[in-house]
Amino acid sequence: MRHLVVIGGVAAGTSAAAKARRVDAGLKISLFTQEGRVSYGSCGLPYFIAGQIAEERQLIARTVEVFAQQGIEVHLYQRAEEIDPTRRLVRVVDVREGAQREVGYDALVIATGASPVLPPVPGRELAGVFTLRTLDDGLAIRRYLQEQSPQRAVIVGAGYIGLEMVEAFHQRGMSVTVVEMAPQVLPNMDADMAALVQEYLEGREVRVLTAERVLALEPAAGQAADRVGLVRTERHELPAELVLLSAGVRPNAALAARAGVALGAAGAIRVNQRMETNLPNVYAAGDCATTVHLVSGEEVYLPMGTTANKQGRVAGANAAGGEASFPGVVGTGIARILEMEVARTGLCERECKALGIDYRTRTIRSRTVPGYFPGSGRIHVKVLAEHPGGRLLGAQIVGRAGSAKRIDVFATALTLGAAVGRLWDADLAYAPPFSPVFDPVLLALNAFRREA
Amino acid sequence: MRHLVVIGGVAAGTSAAAKARRVDAGLKISLFTQEGRVSYGSCGLPYFIAGQIAEERQLIARTVEVFAQQGIEVHLYQRAEEIDPTRRLVRVVDVREGAQREVGYDALVIATGASPVLPPVPGRELAGVFTLRTLDDGLAIRRYLQEQSPQRAVIVGAGYIGLEMVEAFHQRGMSVTVVEMAPQVLPNMDADMAALVQEYLEGREVRVLTAERVLALEPAAGQAADRVGLVRTERHELPAELVLLSAGVRPNAALAARAGVALGAAGAIRVNQRMETNLPNVYAAGDCATTVHLVSGEEVYLPMGTTANKQGRVAGANAAGGEASFPGVVGTGIARILEMEVARTGLCERECKALGIDYRTRTIRSRTVPGYFPGSGRIHVKVLAEHPGGRLLGAQIVGRAGSAKRIDVFATALTLGAAVGRLWDADLAYAPPFSPVFDPVLLALNAFRREA
Repeated sequence: MRHLVVIGGVAAGTSAAAKARRVDAGLKISLFTQEGRVSYGSCGLPYFIAGQIAEERQLIARTVEVFAQQGIEVHLYQRAEEIDPTRRLVRVVDVREGAQREVGYDALVIATGASPVLPPVPGRELAGVFTLRTLDDGLAIRRYLQEQSPQRAVIVGAGYIGLEMVEAFHQRGMSVTVVEMAPQVLPNMDADMAALVQEYLEGREVRVLTAERVLALEPAAGQAADRVGLVRTERHELPAELVLLSAGVRPNAALAARAGVALGAAGAIRVNQRMETNLPNVYAAGDCATTVHLVSGEEVYLPMGTTANKQGRVAGANAAGGEASFPGVVGTGIARILEMEVARTGLCERECKALGIDYRTRTIRSRTVPGYFPGSGRIHVKVLAEHPGGRLLGAQIVGRAGSAKRIDVFATALTLGAAVGRLWDADLAYAPPFSPVFDPVLLALNAFRREA
Repeated sequence: MRHLVVIGGVAAGTSAAAKARRVDAGLKISLFTQEGRVSYGSCGLPYFIAGQIAEERQLIARTVEVFAQQGIEVHLYQRAEEIDPTRRLVRVVDVREGAQREVGYDALVIATGASPVLPPVPGRELAGVFTLRTLDDGLAIRRYLQEQSPQRAVIVGAGYIGLEMVEAFHQRGMSVTVVEMAPQVLPNMDADMAALVQEYLEGREVRVLTAERVLALEPAAGQAADRVGLVRTERHELPAELVLLSAGVRPNAALAARAGVALGAAGAIRVNQRMETNLPNVYAAGDCATTVHLVSGEEVYLPMGTTANKQGRVAGANAAGGEASFPGVVGTGIARILEMEVARTGLCERECKALGIDYRTRTIRSRTVPGYFPGSGRIHVKVLAEHPGGRLLGAQIVGRAGSAKRIDVFATALTLGAAVGRLWDADLAYAPPFSPVFDPVLLALNAFRREA
């Protein structure tokens, strides 16, 4: 019986195993994870910490027992230490007992995910200092909130997760300060759009410090020496009983690299459209792997939960002897931050400049629904188009409830390679509960129009 | 000085006048309307009647005074009775005083809108029987609700407006019965999707009678003889103190037709992409005019507020000497009915059959956001694709809050002429407040996939 081994048990790993089972009912499938749980919705963790999701089990998509019923053996607390591609073996170690064993494979899917980038500062080991990546991380933060009732949080890093955690801590009644090294929040959006978010946060009494580095995490004077009490930055001393380090992630590719797997963008495992690595019968998927940006054509590292699921399926299908491919992404991202929504897709200005693409931008301000309609809120839409020619390059949205998911229209147009002019008259849905008569998306596209 | 005359003062007429002003600052622009107000959001009327929009003035986009500041003369209560294209004259009559006059034009935009189709039954003149088309209609219904406190409403016709008014009456605490001649509610959607809406309505204690004709509107026995009290249908006698007739609309094209303007689909004024009629210098736009369905290539009559605005702009631009065109629509529609949302775009099954297009359908059931996330609700998505080839033909959505505006992804893909396979891996936005990890739109498209 052929044996598929999957390393990793969150989005990509479980998607790969489940898909492989559907492709080949007779395949032996074993999944190894160093964690104590599999198949959880890690993107839901900020809402679990906020208390909007009550129970840990709500985050679990499929349990070990469900996998077992599908003939997928899940091995918890088993860390893959070494891959031997010549002998087709994976050496795994039990992280609780230390016992080691070798597991043979016919096909291997590496779905080892990513790890938080830790700022190189002293004090990271103090109690009250967290990262948020795994369910265990989420449980630890929630427990700390319940047991210690911290009043002041400092969030280091103002990307999506950092700002989603602003919402979580804010809803818990804490005062929140965000410290970001870059000169703006949301460094993957343009500065003008990010400024709208910063302004909003400050209006909600979230302190935002940009272009500022953290120098040290320290205990508070006169308090327990093993517990964080102060964040020292270049210009401030910020009292904090809880610190979240959310300065981005890096791919967990060391295991693969040691086995001779070639790496690509940002040190992630290089894969082709079939999720094949350079080694025969070795696939990779998810946050440890590269993908292709379909607007630029470049290999990129853009770890996202939805991409991990898609890549996992493709890796699982091919590893099981099927035929599937994943062409790439267009760089879509979305987040809610309290009552504000943000989204982006395609290329932002910095990315266009780096690629040498000449572009024009248009930004409009409108309403989510007509001004007369209950719940009407502000929305800003920015569009980037190539100059000349008008090929759509990207879009960004910042606005109130109902704003951000409109990014899908742009993501669709980018996928289909459209010029902005193709969509000027698009028949987007209008009724007062949903949109102004000219949808903000259309307004932004039409801002490129030159007409009589 | 050239003189542009616009007949009609709601969406298309005011859009035409405003656009013409932007194109030619020196143009004399006169707008005639038989109504007492201009530039109101007629699509907001159900929410005004429901009481969700408090004040009449909230529905007014631009007042007569604002138009005057832009050099657009608005003439209220002036009905155009005759167009003389040879002498380039419009004869208008003051509907209050009866005075007539002739107005010369260099260019004419006909934006006379549409009128409700009235079922040919006795009793339509009774007090308590309404249609909903104009602001005056909306004011009359609201006044009747306030003064008469009707408890039981019968809505004749289960299209968008009929069902939007279910929400309005329901929110007013009335018991509501809907009578529809067709065998389903929402006759412009497929029966299977419409059945979900009917089931929902019945669950909310709205009585729905389909495949049933109204025979007469009558006073109640022993009550005022000039006031409705009963709706007699083929199979029922329905007590009702308020009756709304919402059995569709027909274009107001008689004025144009008498002047020799050619008519097209459904008796609407035939226009080309520039909104030109067959007569020189005579344009038409909005609910009185035809458009082109870009999926079928056929001339159609699909009156929609958003199309009226777009066509009005184009008519105004061209009438003022500019250059603009409107290619057509893809048949998008959307409505909210209490907590249920519905939308459609492209062609439905009946339309495909009528056009002789071979097609396949896929329908999926999913969640608006992950099951673990607060506010998660059911969503159904149906997709139609051409067979063979997989060209996207249309889509329909029925679901809870957050469902229907997803139709815009399909409308965009239809505008760009995509096959379903082009979007299987589309990078649609995912975060728990917005979507499950596989957006329902992607699930529906992927249901067409045949893979290993």
